[in-house]
Amino acid sequence: MAVRRPSRVREGIDPALVTTDATALVKRGDIDVVVEVIGGIEPARTLITTAFEYGASVVSANKALLAQDGAALHAVAEEHGEDLYYEASVAGAIPLIRPLRESLAGDKVNRVLGIVNGTTNFILDKMDSTGAGYQEALDEATALGYAEADPTADVEAFDAAAKAAILAGIAFHTRVRLDDVYREGMTEVTAADFASARAMGCTIKLLAICERAADGGSVTARVHPAMIPLSHPLASVRGAYNAVFVESDAAGQLMFYGPGAGGAPTASAVLGDLVAVCRNRLSGATGPGESAYAALTVSPMGDVVTRYHISLDVADKPGVLAQVATVFAEHGVSIDTVRQQGRQDSDGEASLVVVTHRASDASLSGTVEALRKLDTVRGVASIMRVEGE
Amino acid sequence: MAVRRPSRVREGIDPALVTTDATALVKRGDIDVVVEVIGGIEPARTLITTAFEYGASVVSANKALLAQDGAALHAVAEEHGEDLYYEASVAGAIPLIRPLRESLAGDKVNRVLGIVNGTTNFILDKMDSTGAGYQEALDEATALGYAEADPTADVEAFDAAAKAAILAGIAFHTRVRLDDVYREGMTEVTAADFASARAMGCTIKLLAICERAADGGSVTARVHPAMIPLSHPLASVRGAYNAVFVESDAAGQLMFYGPGAGGAPTASAVLGDLVAVCRNRLSGATGPGESAYAALTVSPMGDVVTRYHISLDVADKPGVLAQVATVFAEHGVSIDTVRQQGRQDSDGEASLVVVTHRASDASLSGTVEALRKLDTVRGVASIMRVEGE
Repeated sequence: MAVRRPSRVREGIDPALVTTDATALVKRGDIDVVVEVIGGIEPARTLITTAFEYGASVVSANKALLAQDGAALHAVAEEHGEDLYYEASVAGAIPLIRPLRESLAGDKVNRVLGIVNGTTNFILDKMDSTGAGYQEALDEATALGYAEADPTADVEAFDAAAKAAILAGIAFHTRVRLDDVYREGMTEVTAADFASARAMGCTIKLLAICERAADGGSVTARVHPAMIPLSHPLASVRGAYNAVFVESDAAGQLMFYGPGAGGAPTASAVLGDLVAVCRNRLSGATGPGESAYAALTVSPMGDVVTRYHISLDVADKPGVLAQVATVFAEHGVSIDTVRQQGRQDSDGEASLVVVTHRASDASLSGTVEALRKLDTVRGVASIMRVEGE
Repeated sequence: MAVRRPSRVREGIDPALVTTDATALVKRGDIDVVVEVIGGIEPARTLITTAFEYGASVVSANKALLAQDGAALHAVAEEHGEDLYYEASVAGAIPLIRPLRESLAGDKVNRVLGIVNGTTNFILDKMDSTGAGYQEALDEATALGYAEADPTADVEAFDAAAKAAILAGIAFHTRVRLDDVYREGMTEVTAADFASARAMGCTIKLLAICERAADGGSVTARVHPAMIPLSHPLASVRGAYNAVFVESDAAGQLMFYGPGAGGAPTASAVLGDLVAVCRNRLSGATGPGESAYAALTVSPMGDVVTRYHISLDVADKPGVLAQVATVFAEHGVSIDTVRQQGRQDSDGEASLVVVTHRASDASLSGTVEALRKLDTVRGVASIMRVEGE
């Protein structure tokens, strides 16, 4: 057992088994399985690679490393005939990687929609249920220990993006790297956005969305806040819980729900993997390795097709709606509904809420750029994608 | 491929591959894997046993057979070094058996609460959302194809009981047979019960409940309608969907959700198993077999401890509540709340709704028996267990 602070008292562990020299440990040569729960890229990557070279299989909980270098690690594991398991890297104890890569091995997954970060789900749930603003909800999450002192990795969705890369790779049998994942944090979600969501029968969640394109030849992976209908099973995922919704050809709609983080849940997932790897070793076999045979292209965010909810601050005078509608039409973005209302507090300002039909993200970006140039549009208050319909 | 009607046109299948002689097929000796999707006890049991004897592994979707003879089938499979997989036997395509027996292999499951029958969930959901009575909701389920012409297996919970036996066995690493499962159907659930449930912030679901006793030395398995709080993740499982809620020491609360039946979902589960069995064969290994090492006692229903919601029709006169409360006290059943109300339509009758604290089912049965003997108690309108709190 290699640790940073060997002097710490560890109930039930013989101190003679504790070392600070992780490298010497993985190089012993008589190790069957290495459990890596360090996190981060280095020294984890080198230790895991060395473990494979010295004849050990690896169980890891390291989402950052798997998202960045999963393919390379799988290649080294395969070269040495070793197992690489990492159930704990995505959504804590929720069995997700095993179901996706084994239970659905004979099915075709078309979409994965996941709440894969407990901190941000806690914050958004708090905003939804109490009307609190982002900062207030974050402060409560910090006070309760759900958010770290520096919450950047969570609220800017770096954590969720890493999980999206891992999920997309496994779901679509293709390589998706962290850099392929479009990422938008949730720090700019406001109480007003929640009010807009409620008016549409929706709530707001930070979603990891992995989709196969309609033509089947490419995939996309993205993480951003989105409105989803209250009737969607993900809408009722409360507090710091995680859940992943999977749509496949044959199985239909599945959802996996549970605690997304924490010491004990992570230990549960790691132990499940450890048992599997030990079983494999005893029978002289290895479990499923990387499955990247589909080798699909990962398309950029502009190719994503979805619906949008756009709030505009506009001049409160005749003809504005016609101008705005023209811009949408010119960019090929079809409008589903428009709600226009004068604002009590303004000098001749009104707000215009547009919900579109499905359109590409590139078309929507073009539309918004053009809207900003209109004299009558004072500002774009918010743009939110609408998912799960 | 052995079928009943060989003349039926099967797109993409060479008619030369079709036979009616299933026995000859499993005895060929060059078969790697037999997929059994016949259902029922015989001839499925003999065919599966023969398949093992002739060197094939088996993938089955047969809940009735697994619930009745799982231990014997596992023993034959093990004797011949073959695999027995049956993900499709419980909750259709929802990955459940693999997560329970592999992902949670290093954890300790304490409770499984499942909606494992889509037909009855459709009926109860319909009653809940429309106020319909049981018969009306059943008729709609039949018209829509959710219920069979003879719905007995579903509404009397034989189907759910078989699944409970399989789930309990896997969750607790012990043998639980169909006969060990307490079973109560849902044909007597009324619109009034739903009104009572709503008054408690609950809804009613037909639940399969597998529990480890507090002392850890025994387990119980039962299927019956029960009230669960609307805030429980199972409460929002709508229509014909299934979901299984698992509570374990380390992972905490997990839920697995999806379609519980249907041709395509079943095929997805069967194919996942088929891929696993083929992988095992290629590497010369077998997957996890029966895990019954815990060898726990299955306690009878009387030992189950839960809460109860009891509706009594009583004489509308002073002293009745005191009499009733005395009976509960004499049987050691502690009362949480009582609601008493005169009824508009009655001649001196009132209704009394009692919600208890946790008590054993045996104590509750004794209480109810004694209540029935009271002159002032005209009838016991309903008894419903309250779960998931």
